[in-house]
Amino acid sequence: MRNLILISIAICLATASVGQQKDSLQIREIYNEVLNNGQCHENLKVLCKDVGNRISGSENAEKAVEWGKDLMTEYGFDKVYLQEVIVPKWVRGDVEKLSINGAGVTMHPEILALGGSVGTDGLLQGKIIEVKNFNELEELGEEKIKGKFVFFNRPMNPTRISTFHAYGGCVDQRHAGAKEASKFGAIGTITRSMTLKFDRMPHTGSMGYGDAETKIPSVAISTVGAHNLSLALAANNGLEATLQLSCKTEPDVKSHNVIGEITGSEFPNKIIVVGGHLDSWDVGEGAHDDGSGVVQSIEVLRLIKALDIKPRHTLRCILYMNEENGNRGGKTYANLVKASGEEHIMALESDRGGFSPRGFSVDGTNGQLSTIKSFEPLFEPYNLHIFQKGYGGVDIGPLKDGKICLVGLIPDSQRYFDFHHAATDVWENVNKRELEMGAASVTGMIYLVDKYGFESKMDLNDFKK
Amino acid sequence: MRNLILISIAICLATASVGQQKDSLQIREIYNEVLNNGQCHENLKVLCKDVGNRISGSENAEKAVEWGKDLMTEYGFDKVYLQEVIVPKWVRGDVEKLSINGAGVTMHPEILALGGSVGTDGLLQGKIIEVKNFNELEELGEEKIKGKFVFFNRPMNPTRISTFHAYGGCVDQRHAGAKEASKFGAIGTITRSMTLKFDRMPHTGSMGYGDAETKIPSVAISTVGAHNLSLALAANNGLEATLQLSCKTEPDVKSHNVIGEITGSEFPNKIIVVGGHLDSWDVGEGAHDDGSGVVQSIEVLRLIKALDIKPRHTLRCILYMNEENGNRGGKTYANLVKASGEEHIMALESDRGGFSPRGFSVDGTNGQLSTIKSFEPLFEPYNLHIFQKGYGGVDIGPLKDGKICLVGLIPDSQRYFDFHHAATDVWENVNKRELEMGAASVTGMIYLVDKYGFESKMDLNDFKK
Repeated sequence: MRNLILISIAICLATASVGQQKDSLQIREIYNEVLNNGQCHENLKVLCKDVGNRISGSENAEKAVEWGKDLMTEYGFDKVYLQEVIVPKWVRGDVEKLSINGAGVTMHPEILALGGSVGTDGLLQGKIIEVKNFNELEELGEEKIKGKFVFFNRPMNPTRISTFHAYGGCVDQRHAGAKEASKFGAIGTITRSMTLKFDRMPHTGSMGYGDAETKIPSVAISTVGAHNLSLALAANNGLEATLQLSCKTEPDVKSHNVIGEITGSEFPNKIIVVGGHLDSWDVGEGAHDDGSGVVQSIEVLRLIKALDIKPRHTLRCILYMNEENGNRGGKTYANLVKASGEEHIMALESDRGGFSPRGFSVDGTNGQLSTIKSFEPLFEPYNLHIFQKGYGGVDIGPLKDGKICLVGLIPDSQRYFDFHHAATDVWENVNKRELEMGAASVTGMIYLVDKYGFESKMDLNDFKK
Repeated sequence: MRNLILISIAICLATASVGQQKDSLQIREIYNEVLNNGQCHENLKVLCKDVGNRISGSENAEKAVEWGKDLMTEYGFDKVYLQEVIVPKWVRGDVEKLSINGAGVTMHPEILALGGSVGTDGLLQGKIIEVKNFNELEELGEEKIKGKFVFFNRPMNPTRISTFHAYGGCVDQRHAGAKEASKFGAIGTITRSMTLKFDRMPHTGSMGYGDAETKIPSVAISTVGAHNLSLALAANNGLEATLQLSCKTEPDVKSHNVIGEITGSEFPNKIIVVGGHLDSWDVGEGAHDDGSGVVQSIEVLRLIKALDIKPRHTLRCILYMNEENGNRGGKTYANLVKASGEEHIMALESDRGGFSPRGFSVDGTNGQLSTIKSFEPLFEPYNLHIFQKGYGGVDIGPLKDGKICLVGLIPDSQRYFDFHHAATDVWENVNKRELEMGAASVTGMIYLVDKYGFESKMDLNDFKK
């Protein structure tokens, strides 16, 4: 009996080892294929250069929808279709001017209206008061704020190692600055750009008025502009700002999520999602944010086909519309999933730039996390080391139901906010190999989750060190 | 007695934990200081823009020596001095022209003479024969090669995850191509640039003639140029190249390693070295190669002083001269060390670009490797995960004696060869945070090795997970 057990254990171990070897070979093939024959960087060039930036509701966004559909059709995915999404339409307009004037001072800092801001309806003039956070608004009160521009100037904290944490620590100024300042009678806001780079490049991004009674115009100023404005205010508190913005919100329009699928061989009704968002801000080319995630997600399905991998579950690539200012694409998709009861195993999102991949963050059960952690040794040869609990992504967030595993690709974050929502987010700033390594990493993870699922504990032991 | 043992163990564990916490706080302070107040990126700007590229023996190299000495003096290091090094002097000259002509074909590909190449003494004309490696030279033999240019066109292997491995796999064509081809009567060589990027940018680099009887001129051609030339040759084997180069080697000249020190409080005669090389190729600005290593190494000593850390051993920052084409600086330094018998604990080199740090490679004993591995948990919060046996670096190589521990900083390698030895290796392509994170990582490692050394096994257990 004892011998029988030992023999059984030996057979199990041998089988496990063969399984692991097969998987490591398969993952090696995935990386080889993308590094030898990858198409995502050229696809990104077309999206960036031929389509260009593509804010929801714009003509370019519709061109991007066509581009995505055509590309996935050309690749011969089993199904390619559009999913209707009603999106907001915010338009920047032609006029965007800020001048700062006072005794001996004239400044014309580089600005961008924040997405969602109202225009100025002519010239808007007033003094400027600088604050670092919402508490200071309270302390100053209506008396000191009323009739003025509030200048939010809290910088991103450079000591945070993940720049996303630094972003999270001050993006409230951009999101809710206008709403909060308007409570005290401010006439407009000027917000320091969300970047760790010290340059003359303003970064736009979403803002909302919530339940504010008055909607006041809101702009982002570059970090150099913010620095200079702060110095000028310290020297001369009586400076006056003149702002002119022609941006406006038009009625909602119809747009689409773009979806491509490879049908599962065993579980065609169980879905694994991979995606990024097709819309971008209306400056630059949306290359890192999130052209990279879009072309990587398409590349995942292309790689699976090219390597003749037959997935057990249906692999669905989703190019979401409207992540930037409403997340209507992600919400619409999740609502339809909930209405249909369609079962989802995992949704993986790439929306943190096309940089060298470092790992994955997992928003799921402890069991799901431990399954994904168990794959870690297979990714070590590719320098992926971060497998941790964390946020999945905006687009996939609405799918969260306690059962589906949400996963975000974590690339190196150091350069992301250099380009984020700025005119510099262009194709030239996305490195081909870094983009491809990300696509391969996502493909590898999807291959493993498709093969082992989250339930089969026995298989998972194959990967434990 | 048993209780006494238990109490002793408890005290030891508590002490160990306090030690580890102190170290993690110290390392956090190092990162904070460089991310808040780092000076290396601005120092790099001065080196790149005010000095510029600085090949050994050039006027700029001497300006760089002065710059390094002045900067370290200004920082108030305990000692700052120069160490004489006799260096080769190769000069590119004004004329660098390649044209390819044949029936209906005229090409003027972008080229750079390889460092060390002889000139052409007028026009050098001949047909071209393409090979992928030295074996093909053997197979073709003198009959097919004599009187022709040999075109070495083996690309770097894109599937190698570390681009340094891809480089190592084909740099023989550049180093020894001329020497090998001349054996079969070739009149010159044209070598595909050592880069994974497909562009029109030629990359220079060192070559040598060894014991070759005839020294033949050698140039690098861009990857796009190589691709086009290969296509043209396939269509028309009778193409003729005309090369004109005015480069030459002048007599050796005097130059210097630049050295700065903080004297050790306990072991002033035991040395820990940190360094990079001050010379660069004569194109671009030597920003990644190796301006980054230079400013990071200076920053290490600046950080130690700024944080009032009192090192036990003497910390010596060395800016080596002539890594690129002779390594005379590294050899001179090692010879002087051997002559004096001065004891060295560790030499750490940063010469793989100013990119996001990923870890360290260790060329030392197993004991030294395990000491360095034991520090890994302290670096995990900064996303350093690679602590492995491997190459230290060119400059520190000559120090190897079986006792000293040689360590190389490993940054992310994906973009390195985009810029390496090319006109694009400029300050603008070095990200401030990535450079600073590298400086902090090296400082943290030096802090730990200085504190614990490689001998005290008891202390090391503090760090084991």
